[in-house]
Amino acid sequence: MTAKSGLSRRGLLGLAGAGVVGAGAGFAIDRFVVPADATGSAPSTIYPFHGEHQAGVTTAAQDRLHFAAYDVSDISRAELVSLLKDWSAAAARMTAGRPVGDGAIDGQKDAPPDDTGEALDLPPAGLTITFGFGPSLFDHRFGLEDKRPAALIDLPHFPGDALIDELVGGDLCIQACSDDPQVAFHAIRTLSRIAFGRASIRWSQLGFGRTSSTTRAQVTPRNLFGFKDGTANVKAEDTARVTDHVWVPRGDSAAWMTGGSYLVSRKIRMTIETWDRTALREQERVIGRSKGEGAPLSGGSEFTEPDFAKLGHGAVAIDAGAHVRLSHPKQNDGALLLRRGYNFVDGNDDLGRLNAGLFFIAFQRDPRTQFVPIQLRLAKNDQMNEYIRHVGSGIFAVPPGAAVGGYVGQTLFG
Amino acid sequence: MTAKSGLSRRGLLGLAGAGVVGAGAGFAIDRFVVPADATGSAPSTIYPFHGEHQAGVTTAAQDRLHFAAYDVSDISRAELVSLLKDWSAAAARMTAGRPVGDGAIDGQKDAPPDDTGEALDLPPAGLTITFGFGPSLFDHRFGLEDKRPAALIDLPHFPGDALIDELVGGDLCIQACSDDPQVAFHAIRTLSRIAFGRASIRWSQLGFGRTSSTTRAQVTPRNLFGFKDGTANVKAEDTARVTDHVWVPRGDSAAWMTGGSYLVSRKIRMTIETWDRTALREQERVIGRSKGEGAPLSGGSEFTEPDFAKLGHGAVAIDAGAHVRLSHPKQNDGALLLRRGYNFVDGNDDLGRLNAGLFFIAFQRDPRTQFVPIQLRLAKNDQMNEYIRHVGSGIFAVPPGAAVGGYVGQTLFG
Ligand code: HEM
Ligand code: HEM
Repeated sequence: MTAKSGLSRRGLLGLAGAGVVGAGAGFAIDRFVVPADATGSAPSTIYPFHGEHQAGVTTAAQDRLHFAAYDVSDISRAELVSLLKDWSAAAARMTAGRPVGDGAIDGQKDAPPDDTGEALDLPPAGLTITFGFGPSLFDHRFGLEDKRPAALIDLPHFPGDALIDELVGGDLCIQACSDDPQVAFHAIRTLSRIAFGRASIRWSQLGFGRTSSTTRAQVTPRNLFGFKDGTANVKAEDTARVTDHVWVPRGDSAAWMTGGSYLVSRKIRMTIETWDRTALREQERVIGRSKGEGAPLSGGSEFTEPDFAKLGHGAVAIDAGAHVRLSHPKQNDGALLLRRGYNFVDGNDDLGRLNAGLFFIAFQRDPRTQFVPIQLRLAKNDQMNEYIRHVGSGIFAVPPGAAVGGYVGQTLFG
Repeated sequence: MTAKSGLSRRGLLGLAGAGVVGAGAGFAIDRFVVPADATGSAPSTIYPFHGEHQAGVTTAAQDRLHFAAYDVSDISRAELVSLLKDWSAAAARMTAGRPVGDGAIDGQKDAPPDDTGEALDLPPAGLTITFGFGPSLFDHRFGLEDKRPAALIDLPHFPGDALIDELVGGDLCIQACSDDPQVAFHAIRTLSRIAFGRASIRWSQLGFGRTSSTTRAQVTPRNLFGFKDGTANVKAEDTARVTDHVWVPRGDSAAWMTGGSYLVSRKIRMTIETWDRTALREQERVIGRSKGEGAPLSGGSEFTEPDFAKLGHGAVAIDAGAHVRLSHPKQNDGALLLRRGYNFVDGNDDLGRLNAGLFFIAFQRDPRTQFVPIQLRLAKNDQMNEYIRHVGSGIFAVPPGAAVGGYVGQTLFG
């Protein structure tokens, strides 16, 4: 693909500009597909930044993640608002496949280029940028004490938690997802650069091989235990479930969160060397599904509903401590999560073991009745605990989407 | 894509099996393309493992890298040879898109599955696996003292080096490249698992957004400074240059390396926050090329040969300390490198700065006359040094490829 093709960021200026206007005008348009070009590049997707909800929640999970949590510096409320405005403006450009600033990379030579450049020739690659506000943002610094939603709790300590301070919390978060890691990186780098002096990265995480499908159009991917992950997930097509379990409804006590959601992230390290020495039978017993097909051990195929009462070999076919039993809505008063996590590998530790696992992300209407009870049950009884360790954690209020000309967070500050 | 499609690892058993035989029979076949399937997946490439040279050197650079350096445990020469045989056998299967072992994931329940599973439904994705031997392998432990090639030097200390011990060296290395990071990870994980008790990871590196094109069919990608990287690289099509500068020729003093090459890796951290505050003019002066087009500052377009004598604004157009002047063959007695590096991001440091840069990889016939003099010149005078820091380093002899039924390293041990 050359800079001249219709697919490069510079080539896209006209096309994408038009696209964004189109999206703003009608929330119904939920994506654009940039067609393959003459040089043989694959078609690329644009998800509009503006809309009723932020993109990156029910959006079909992209292949790569770059997530960052930020601490806000000692700035005023007005400065925080202008940071959020700057972020939204840049996010609208980048998700449309446009460089930030005036985009004239070869123009003004005496100043740093507006855009850092590493994504210049890359397609939009389905980039979504999703902003969230952590509990610590809601304090006297910004006069937000009264605005903290009741659902934005401090997560309790769960049995077995092995959290590392530097991997926990954050005043703000950005989830950048794209089918190209360089496009996701460019987003986090650019937004961090825009934040310079106003907010800085507290922790960050790269991920690949999405571990959940969020639409029926996607094949279920596999996590690093080698199992299909996302089979029983809430999917975008389940509109009733999405409405009832993912989005904050009108009439909520935190009115500014209407149309928003809550994001819980957990960095979960897997001890894969131990797992890899475990018999297949035991691996399947731990999960409660077969490894090849991903079918429940009670029988059927991948999408057969598990039968938790069914017996096999003298005991229940799906073990009492199996992950899918404990996390199933039947065990959790009907609680559901929209999971949207990614596999991660952070090199190796000093014993030569791969430092790998699952960066778990879940969206929900209320963590108090969704993530917390499920995780409490898992933390106590999940057989999987022998092979995992929760080392990082975050909870963020994800406000509704911005209207064209507006910014994410406007319902809180506006 | 479903497990039933012609593209999944399990579906591929027949097809890829046939492919590998074909490749073994004639070295001329340098890749297979698995066609797109009915579910809409993109076509996927298979590079045969067996051949005169190892794949992963002149192979068109894939999008993702997982690199690992290993220390060999206290084992015998015979055990080392059987490790290399096991590695070659597994690499031949994985690069053909097949699971390791008998591939029967749902078979034997009382043992750990042969294959860890996370790549089961993924296409071959152009995987190449390239093995290398570090200087420390050639000692009395394995009776290899007399076999160490003169070209496999210990790299000298270069001015400005800020190497971190844990990121340097290694008895063995594996470079796994693929268009899918989960496929590259699966390769390193599987080969580490096979090595259990015989060798363990010393350091490892993930990379994305290849920073060099190695064929004219590829568009030049950009590094994290936002510049095109790979423009003047040795390309696979330049057969004379490849023959003269990349492969070890017949008649070399280390006869077992005929058809092999030497890999030098350097983990180079970029201080991107400083770079991002630097004026465009200065960025271009440092590199010696324009940022947008990648043209030499002496004029023309991306592939115009730089004119180092040309004047502009009273001085030479391409600065005396510009990276492309100092690294150009004209300044280095005609020395050339086949660069095959990747961008990396390892999260952030405790000051909130992105821990990012270039994982430089170069292949060559003799590091003594290629990498070393070029890097010495760069280390002394490159204006870029203000924005980079070399933190990791490796040098490895990359033996010739294995014949069908043979293994990589057979010319050394056989
Ligand atoms: C490394 C950690 C984890 C791994 C490897 C893992 C793996 C899996 C797998 C393989 C499944 C079955 C396939 C599917 O329906 O997606 C599953 C289901 C599920 N997991 Fe996890 N999981 C992990 C952590 C968690 C956590 C922390 C939670 C929430 C607190 C969670 C909640 C769920 C839920 C709600 C389901 C669907 C259950 C159902 O409705 O059948 N998982 N997980
Ligand atoms: C972070 C570190 C580095 C960056 C950002 C970088 C970047 C670049 C760029 C932008 C170019 C021009 C485009 C091209 O021809 O590829 C280039 C060329 C080149 N670089 Fe580097 N480089 C780095 C390190 C190195 C090192 C360590 C070496 C070898 C010791 C090296 C050797 C070369 C060579 C041989 C050329 C081609 C020069 C020519 O023939 O015109 N580079 N590099």
